[in-house]
Amino acid sequence: MTYCVAMRLSSGLVFVSDSRTNAGVDHISTFRKLHTFQKKNERMLVLQCSGNLATTQSIINVLMQRGEDNEQENLYTVKSMYDAAHIVGKTVREIIEKNNEASMSGAIDFSCNIILGGQIKGESARLFHIYPQGNFIEATVDTPYFQIGESKYGKPIIDRILEYTTPLEQGMQCALISMDSTLRSNLSVGLPLDVMIYPTDSYSDDQLYRLNEGHPYLNIIHTGWDEGLLGVFTRLPPLQLE
Amino acid sequence: MTYCVAMRLSSGLVFVSDSRTNAGVDHISTFRKLHTFQKKNERMLVLQCSGNLATTQSIINVLMQRGEDNEQENLYTVKSMYDAAHIVGKTVREIIEKNNEASMSGAIDFSCNIILGGQIKGESARLFHIYPQGNFIEATVDTPYFQIGESKYGKPIIDRILEYTTPLEQGMQCALISMDSTLRSNLSVGLPLDVMIYPTDSYSDDQLYRLNEGHPYLNIIHTGWDEGLLGVFTRLPPLQLE
Repeated sequence: MTYCVAMRLSSGLVFVSDSRTNAGVDHISTFRKLHTFQKKNERMLVLQCSGNLATTQSIINVLMQRGEDNEQENLYTVKSMYDAAHIVGKTVREIIEKNNEASMSGAIDFSCNIILGGQIKGESARLFHIYPQGNFIEATVDTPYFQIGESKYGKPIIDRILEYTTPLEQGMQCALISMDSTLRSNLSVGLPLDVMIYPTDSYSDDQLYRLNEGHPYLNIIHTGWDEGLLGVFTRLPPLQLE
Repeated sequence: MTYCVAMRLSSGLVFVSDSRTNAGVDHISTFRKLHTFQKKNERMLVLQCSGNLATTQSIINVLMQRGEDNEQENLYTVKSMYDAAHIVGKTVREIIEKNNEASMSGAIDFSCNIILGGQIKGESARLFHIYPQGNFIEATVDTPYFQIGESKYGKPIIDRILEYTTPLEQGMQCALISMDSTLRSNLSVGLPLDVMIYPTDSYSDDQLYRLNEGHPYLNIIHTGWDEGLLGVFTRLPPLQLE
């Protein structure tokens, strides 16, 4: 599996992806699930993928190839993030249909989910969740985040802490705690992490990092959160059920 | 759905169950999912159920009916918790097979999961997770808890806090936080809760409670945990990703 989370906050976007893929416990490998499409000072698009790896790699490849073809609209030329989500959705549908047609059994799940976030000059930063069917929804002030993959373990902490007005640094801290909870409880999610903070109007990936095992701040999150939680827990008022 | 969690700790057992059942969003109702089988000073058995409600109600009914039949071994006469788990497992298999045979389509999921915990005189308190196939596993010192139903939301907090040596009251606090996280993040899990603390060798349900919405200690868990977490969160060292 996979766990990716992305946030659309008042001052920009936050992305955190793990990098573990597995097809059974015997086939565990590391693959980047966070990809960027950039035009300096003009656009910055980020894609996060979960689901069938052959499908998501194909989608990224097709999107990149078409990005070099000036004859048709592509992620480097579309005028809005809505149009970009549309292109990604169309590509998702195309690749999944092709795989399904070629498959003999129909028993294999070729589907995938994609988070697309970013900004194109003239618009504010926007965030979309694109479904295997190619349709998509957009994050709003009420629901400022999306998750794909093993989303349940890391959801409660986000629901408790995150608001649209949360600053980017705190959004990233919250996403890292959410990831830490998931890493502990589910073996199919693993390090290293690809993380990115995108401040609105920066059109840059200056704050894109790969965090490997032993990264000092991951350790701080891991032990600091644990100790803090244990502190809160031991200070809870005595149990009174009657 | 459902969320039930049970713990087998060094000093006894802890059980927490929600009571929401749903078949689509139009059919939401309240059903008790925690059931007890008791013989004073001799045995105390607790069952928690998730899955198809018709199946689990049938199982409880059959177990109760057979409990009045002295001719065959039943939950009131078996000598060990292992034998009790065996009887429950056999009943699970029987009911699910009967439903599957009677079903025209085969498309309906009649399955269920059951947690069985308790103590029969002569043994220590024990805890089992019984699968839809009727087989089962037992909780150990290494893995002192089981969850059924919507288990993922509430797993990280247990993984962070619980150990076999955790006292019963703290085990219950941990289970209530786990339930609170699940209640917030998943609409198919709902109040009231049925909760029980079973101290080893008590053979009693003196500490079985139903906690309705607005219960003072649920409010304490709900707001106290939130505020505590937020406190830990705001005291985390500043983000340092480089």
